Amino acid sequence: MSEVSSAALERARRVRLMIFDVDGVLTDGRLWYGPAGETLKAFHTLDGHGIRMLAQSGVLPAILSGRRSQAVAQRAAELGIGHVLQGIDDKRSAYAALLAQLGLQAEATGYVGDDVVDLPVLTRCGFACAPREAPPAVRQRVHYVCESPAGAGAVREICELLMRAQGSLEAALARYLA
Amino acid sequence: MSEVSSAALERARRVRLMIFDVDGVLTDGRLWYGPAGETLKAFHTLDGHGIRMLAQSGVLPAILSGRRSQAVAQRAAELGIGHVLQGIDDKRSAYAALLAQLGLQAEATGYVGDDVVDLPVLTRCGFACAPREAPPAVRQRVHYVCESPAGAGAVREICELLMRAQGSLEAALARYLA
Amino acid sequence: MSEVSSAALERARRVRLMIFDVDGVLTDGRLWYGPAGETLKAFHTLDGHGIRMLAQSGVLPAILSGRRSQAVAQRAAELGIGHVLQGIDDKRSAYAALLAQLGLQAEATGYVGDDVVDLPVLTRCGFACAPREAPPAVRQRVHYVCESPAGAGAVREICELLMRAQGSLEAALARYLA
Amino acid sequence: MSEVSSAALERARRVRLMIFDVDGVLTDGRLWYGPAGETLKAFHTLDGHGIRMLAQSGVLPAILSGRRSQAVAQRAAELGIGHVLQGIDDKRSAYAALLAQLGLQAEATGYVGDDVVDLPVLTRCGFACAPREAPPAVRQRVHYVCESPAGAGAVREICELLMRAQGSLEAALARYLA
Repeated sequence: MSEVSSAALERARRVRLMIFDVDGVLTDGRLWYGPAGETLKAFHTLDGHGIRMLAQSGVLPAILSGRRSQAVAQRAAELGIGHVLQGIDDKRSAYAALLAQLGLQAEATGYVGDDVVDLPVLTRCGFACAPREAPPAVRQRVHYVCESPAGAGAVREICELLMRAQGSLEAALARYLA
Repeated sequence: MSEVSSAALERARRVRLMIFDVDGVLTDGRLWYGPAGETLKAFHTLDGHGIRMLAQSGVLPAILSGRRSQAVAQRAAELGIGHVLQGIDDKRSAYAALLAQLGLQAEATGYVGDDVVDLPVLTRCGFACAPREAPPAVRQRVHYVCESPAGAGAVREICELLMRAQGSLEAALARYLA
Repeated sequence: MSEVSSAALERARRVRLMIFDVDGVLTDGRLWYGPAGETLKAFHTLDGHGIRMLAQSGVLPAILSGRRSQAVAQRAAELGIGHVLQGIDDKRSAYAALLAQLGLQAEATGYVGDDVVDLPVLTRCGFACAPREAPPAVRQRVHYVCESPAGAGAVREICELLMRAQGSLEAALARYLA
Repeated sequence: MSEVSSAALERARRVRLMIFDVDGVLTDGRLWYGPAGETLKAFHTLDGHGIRMLAQSGVLPAILSGRRSQAVAQRAAELGIGHVLQGIDDKRSAYAALLAQLGLQAEATGYVGDDVVDLPVLTRCGFACAPREAPPAVRQRVHYVCESPAGAGAVREICELLMRAQGSLEAALARYLA
């Protein structure tokens, strides 16, 4: 995260709502199927605590996913994520509706997505991020590409970047060093 | 994918039917066993969307697997893959029958396989591909070896290569940038 | 493990109680969710045998985890770990209580943790360790950072380091070479 | 596999019985626990076909494991492995009994193991192998260390090495190229 451009940090500074894709972002992109279809999702402990700290710092976390699973609902509830949009075919419309609902401008929102279906939101939000595993067509169109792997640190990296940009990271850390 | 030879691109250009092996191609080759035998398959979101885009571009996707599982049937149905051949001991005969059924010549077909049992099809189809994890005896006999890992991008890489060779990749991408 | 500092070895030499975090230490940090919440944990055979050998050498192993799962209870029972503290929000207090119960000073205890919530224990125990995957804020504050991956050798590495520091590794090995 | 020493190849040439450990050899060492204990094993398709080819070439495969699971029994049955010794605390005795039963000398047997509990067999069999992930104390005492990862090619590599040493690899391959 050391080489974050000042332009990216400036964009991150303005984010009040950070939206996360699920497969390929909160997970490593693997879809686990059993005889009855998808059955498991693998989230990561470091990413989860990053989202918790980000929310405590005043940035609202949200989930926007093309798929739908009870595993995501369970994990989101555990992390206290209130805005969980699943089964969304048209991410652009869902994103626009969420902004209207919350009364936020695009520049106050960030999004992490890993595939071309995420481009309509990535090209509109204020701070667009992608995991390093995303195809070139996606990586070339975002403000920040993660160094840590998707599903294993990429989301934590973004949460810390946002907190660093907003000056809240040191305070969050100090709580554990008292 | 930048170093694709012109010979491989020319072969990819003629493909109308692209056939995918499952274990070691659409998955990373791990076979997950529980007390009653095989129980899970791990597919990848990027590979799935690659197959969807490939089909939309007019290339027919198919599955040809030596094993048989309900997980594959579920995933194939979700991706709209109509030709799903599972439990195939003799891949050469199944391949020949599929070509006859569809009225296609070998040069209009491609196949991705990871092991020596795939050689009878790999040495006959027009565009033979293997994951980088395949044994040398396989890698040495195909037209293209993937850079991305099996079960995590190898299939997406091949789908994009086919679309690039056929001039349909830019149009597919433009749909998400409108 | 070859480059262990003499200061770290001296700290390791005094450890009588070694405490292990679970997620991101005994596992690679992935949290496996099914429809009803967390459902699986992936431990590692090399780590387990390391804990067994460490216990045989006279160092007491313990578990201290923020989460709670039956999988951890099962694995701990199998490894003969008697002190298993799960569902602990306040790790500092639980650590202090365990020391009081066992009549041990902080310098006779070690801890392996992977996140900022572990800092209150890491900054108090005699021998603080972190996996290489831990965030910088954690890695910078421990006496030893593992070379092997979390959930796949990191714990084994620490067990062997402790035994080497205490002069018990050769005897443990000799048992298998008789 | 290119750098196999002539001494290792000579040892491999004499093997009539090849014995495989399970966890950390046929799997990557991860032990998957659910609420009721261990629940899954991840084998690999390339390793499985390697064992099949090895058996067809006339070398008898066997399994020798300290743990016990129905998943191993299922996989072994599928691969036609008749000698499956599970739940073995004393691997040295079980190994000796198997040799007596089959009327084989130690030099006609090989073993792949990943931990110190495997040393009593590794130091007695004719051809001792370890995965690259094994601890140094094991790697230093075997005739061959695999290049491919445990649970994802290590066993295939050994099967092909044996067949190459015994002159049966080309014939096995030719069957798929007819």
